[in-house]
Amino acid sequence: MRTTTHNLRVDGSRLWSTILETATFGATPAGGLNRLTLSPEDGQVRDWFREACEAAGLEVGVDALGTQFALRRGRDMSRPPVACGSHLDTQPTGGRFDGILGTLAGLEVMRALNDAGIETEAPLLVINWTNEEGSRYAPAMMASAAYAGEFTTEDILSRRDAAGISVGEALDAIGYRGTEPVGARKIGRFVELHIEQGPILEAEGKTIGVVEGGQGIAWFDGTIQGFESHAGTTPMPRRRDALLGLAEIALAVEDVAKAHGPSAVATIGEAVIGAPSRNVVPGQVRFTLDLRDPRSAILDAAEAALRARIDEIAERRRLTVALTRIWRKEPVPFDPAIVDSVEAAAGALGLSHRRMVSGAGHDACNLAGQVPTAMIFVPCRDGVSHNESESATQSDCTAGANVLLHTLLALANAPA
Amino acid sequence: MRTTTHNLRVDGSRLWSTILETATFGATPAGGLNRLTLSPEDGQVRDWFREACEAAGLEVGVDALGTQFALRRGRDMSRPPVACGSHLDTQPTGGRFDGILGTLAGLEVMRALNDAGIETEAPLLVINWTNEEGSRYAPAMMASAAYAGEFTTEDILSRRDAAGISVGEALDAIGYRGTEPVGARKIGRFVELHIEQGPILEAEGKTIGVVEGGQGIAWFDGTIQGFESHAGTTPMPRRRDALLGLAEIALAVEDVAKAHGPSAVATIGEAVIGAPSRNVVPGQVRFTLDLRDPRSAILDAAEAALRARIDEIAERRRLTVALTRIWRKEPVPFDPAIVDSVEAAAGALGLSHRRMVSGAGHDACNLAGQVPTAMIFVPCRDGVSHNESESATQSDCTAGANVLLHTLLALANAPA
Repeated sequence: MRTTTHNLRVDGSRLWSTILETATFGATPAGGLNRLTLSPEDGQVRDWFREACEAAGLEVGVDALGTQFALRRGRDMSRPPVACGSHLDTQPTGGRFDGILGTLAGLEVMRALNDAGIETEAPLLVINWTNEEGSRYAPAMMASAAYAGEFTTEDILSRRDAAGISVGEALDAIGYRGTEPVGARKIGRFVELHIEQGPILEAEGKTIGVVEGGQGIAWFDGTIQGFESHAGTTPMPRRRDALLGLAEIALAVEDVAKAHGPSAVATIGEAVIGAPSRNVVPGQVRFTLDLRDPRSAILDAAEAALRARIDEIAERRRLTVALTRIWRKEPVPFDPAIVDSVEAAAGALGLSHRRMVSGAGHDACNLAGQVPTAMIFVPCRDGVSHNESESATQSDCTAGANVLLHTLLALANAPA
Repeated sequence: MRTTTHNLRVDGSRLWSTILETATFGATPAGGLNRLTLSPEDGQVRDWFREACEAAGLEVGVDALGTQFALRRGRDMSRPPVACGSHLDTQPTGGRFDGILGTLAGLEVMRALNDAGIETEAPLLVINWTNEEGSRYAPAMMASAAYAGEFTTEDILSRRDAAGISVGEALDAIGYRGTEPVGARKIGRFVELHIEQGPILEAEGKTIGVVEGGQGIAWFDGTIQGFESHAGTTPMPRRRDALLGLAEIALAVEDVAKAHGPSAVATIGEAVIGAPSRNVVPGQVRFTLDLRDPRSAILDAAEAALRARIDEIAERRRLTVALTRIWRKEPVPFDPAIVDSVEAAAGALGLSHRRMVSGAGHDACNLAGQVPTAMIFVPCRDGVSHNESESATQSDCTAGANVLLHTLLALANAPA
């Protein structure tokens, strides 16, 4: 093992140029990307990725759901690979960094190791997971979920998009239905670099997010039933206004999240009045609720507290409120040893950092149950993502890639 | 002048049977009415009305916008007629009483006077105003507005419905483009009987509403601009949630209306999140506001108070809120002498009554600027109107018609 790797750095300009170059595949006029999974543009970036990996001496395989695995041999091929990567597909009006940074940083790490002539103990892997975004096909993080055994390959292959095209047909159309069975590719560790998609790092002036896990999430559908009545003739005390019920509930949601802080977040993202009219007191409202926290106990407690607040509001305002939980995903803790490794790497590189939780879902969250996993975050401007204006700086992308490099080295060169 | 008219009563069963009989023109399966203005069904009820009035010895004329005037001669034809009436057109899913009660009660009053062989000093008039509802053609209360000089006949004749048919063409199709110029028909007084379309009389167990005027109304369009962000990654304190802004504004609207009571009412009837998504913090909401009170000064004060509350909310939540007033109609006071007359008639008939304001618009509100005017209300079940389940009792309809009878007699027989 070389003791001088601590000076090793990626080539930040080279990384940045791969981001710009691949951003031509599916570029939008507004400077973002429309590169839906398994589209022709996705086929183009996959070809680019394969060629670049092969040029860097990596062996590229593809599984039955199109996920690409680019292997860099190690001294001891009996050890399972230490993997990195993310995804190259985007939202319909997506940005140039979401998923792309983590995948291309993996390629840059391999190139930097090549430049320095470094051979690791364990082999290394760069992964491009199919369909992380879940825009064209549900669910999001589709291929990593299948890798983790959550879905069968047959199930996923049969899913159809809005135009009726199946995943299988789309894979064939771009020539990416690989021969490796899904789940067969051994992975020893997984480290995913990603933009934060939130405002914390930028607000605190920190460069590196040391991500300790993924949040748990609970989704609810709600309905509020009051009484529709004439806006001119119904005195205020006699109303059963469903929108005012929603108003109190929305403020209670905010209250409950803050009371269960510091991490809990809760959001009413959709709210619709039934048969709305300018001069009719709203009689019915339906709404959605998204509740997240890294701790299961807090998800439970916040839900209970909110139900109690809703009961009080409903009784006082003479409304009928139903809140139905439609989905719950438990929090995903990342591997503490890898998290420590990320933190140590950031510190050794002299980068400001802070521990945090991922508010959004990632392929790493699906892997974490199978494979010791962690994530590294870098800031994005205003915390904006899923938006053509999504933006990260070359300096921050480089910093993240360096943390990735040193974390992978620590893991790949650790005593077996 | 006969001094025994105080014993005179309408025939409540006969009135009820006219309501049921005319309810066959445009009947819906749910027991309501779909009798849009100037439709074939409206033509049928107009023909029925003309024939019934003529059979009762009334002379029926029609103006250029189809409004029917049924005249009962008086002893002194130099006096302008004392008029009653309402409208026979309905909402697409309307009830059997809204407008219909006031028009058919007018006919019943004439029949009762005939039965008793009574000749009034001033002549009497029963009016069926064209297009009160404003469903097929805008605006509502179209013909009475033209009578009052608010629109020219040519303007109204040229208005087209969603199928492109003009008012003129629709009048011709049912043969009701009359020869009388709009506004030419002299009216000395106008009294309109109507269901309350609100819950107050029923809640208080009162039979007669002595209506002192029509409310003033102000309509606003509002927009709230915050910042759209990820529901999972944006901490609560960093959000600029436009829906929470709406929630506070809606509760402030309720507060302000109650603080400016007892008559002020305020309603957000429409509220829409821009580009809503279950996992996105709402960044934009647009909404409508309907504010009403019988006093101009209160409309002004409530608007000012609400704007102050909105400014505070916007600043505290770092939102941009715009509230634009798009319409203002001043309150319409009815004639105090006629209002007193209605009250006296209700009292003399031994009917429970209370003074109140009309929350909804009526033809009487358009007439009030031209002609001394008042209204009489009777309860409707649950205050529901503009709904096929709209319902009033035979007893209440009879009571209202009796108050109408005696009010008209008092007016028509008053010293000139």
